[in-house]
Amino acid sequence: MTETTEKKDLVQEDVQAENEKTTEETAVEEQVELTIEEQYEARIAELQAKLEDEENRHLRLRADFDNMRRRSQLDREAAEKYRAQKLLSDLLPVLDNFERALQVEATSEEATSIVKGIEMVYRSLVEATEKEGLQVIKAEGEAFDPNFHQAVMQEQDSEKEAGVILRELQKGYILKDRVLRPTMVSVNE
Amino acid sequence: MTETTEKKDLVQEDVQAENEKTTEETAVEEQVELTIEEQYEARIAELQAKLEDEENRHLRLRADFDNMRRRSQLDREAAEKYRAQKLLSDLLPVLDNFERALQVEATSEEATSIVKGIEMVYRSLVEATEKEGLQVIKAEGEAFDPNFHQAVMQEQDSEKEAGVILRELQKGYILKDRVLRPTMVSVNE
Repeated sequence: MTETTEKKDLVQEDVQAENEKTTEETAVEEQVELTIEEQYEARIAELQAKLEDEENRHLRLRADFDNMRRRSQLDREAAEKYRAQKLLSDLLPVLDNFERALQVEATSEEATSIVKGIEMVYRSLVEATEKEGLQVIKAEGEAFDPNFHQAVMQEQDSEKEAGVILRELQKGYILKDRVLRPTMVSVNE
Repeated sequence: MTETTEKKDLVQEDVQAENEKTTEETAVEEQVELTIEEQYEARIAELQAKLEDEENRHLRLRADFDNMRRRSQLDREAAEKYRAQKLLSDLLPVLDNFERALQVEATSEEATSIVKGIEMVYRSLVEATEKEGLQVIKAEGEAFDPNFHQAVMQEQDSEKEAGVILRELQKGYILKDRVLRPTMVSVNE
């Protein structure tokens, strides 16, 4: 505001002074007048450039903002989808051991009853993991697929097609669409 | 640029015309001159206001951006910290049933051997949950704390302080600093 007032005073003085000037002097005065105009124009051009810069800066920040929002949304979804991965991975050997322990052939009534009780616990453990998206990979009788199966040996069964999985040696698991552990298999030659 | 050129032409004509004018006429001319100045000033003020708006808009967006980044960082940390909460909650009844099944008193050698094998599986299950931050809430002998314990009955033991937990009726669990299930207890009167 101070700058503006100063400029106005300058102009008024110029105009008053002009009345006593010759044509030649007036031509010089025109120069000064134009310089002030030019100063205004320069000031306006400067402000317009700043405004444009500022608008571009805003657009860039807005784009960054939208990108970050989108990215953090995707991150959140992925984190949510595979949230139980660590614990489920740690539970795979527990499931293995559980299955091994339950393979005993109980002979006495007491042992049979204990195994039955424990089998129910095993079922409830499997159900809890299934609710979080854990699934056993199909293997026996399926065509060998390196994305899901790991061939640890080959066997020969002339009645079955080549490349078919003959035996499952260790269960494999997927969490939703992600392989946590491939099935260890024997494949038909 | 076209606008600028037009204004300059206008000013030049004014200056040339002034040489033939009376003082009174010049005063009128001053008005016109000031009007152009005022137009410039108005344009500059308008641009400055726009620039200020734009800068404020940018500051607000920047603040929103920083807030969102901070919030999404906190969300991510919380999601990460409690990622296994759902599965762990589902595993609590599995642990309950497991413990109940293991409470049988095996008499035969066969049954004892089976129970021992299963106990190892139970230990490995507990370890997997502990690695994710699951912990049993301390109860028996502790002072009753409604943040962690749920009193389901009162008993009397004159040898112990009032408000002390006498028995744990169902185990309670915390996940890191969050109570998943309070311990069900009997409290000394």
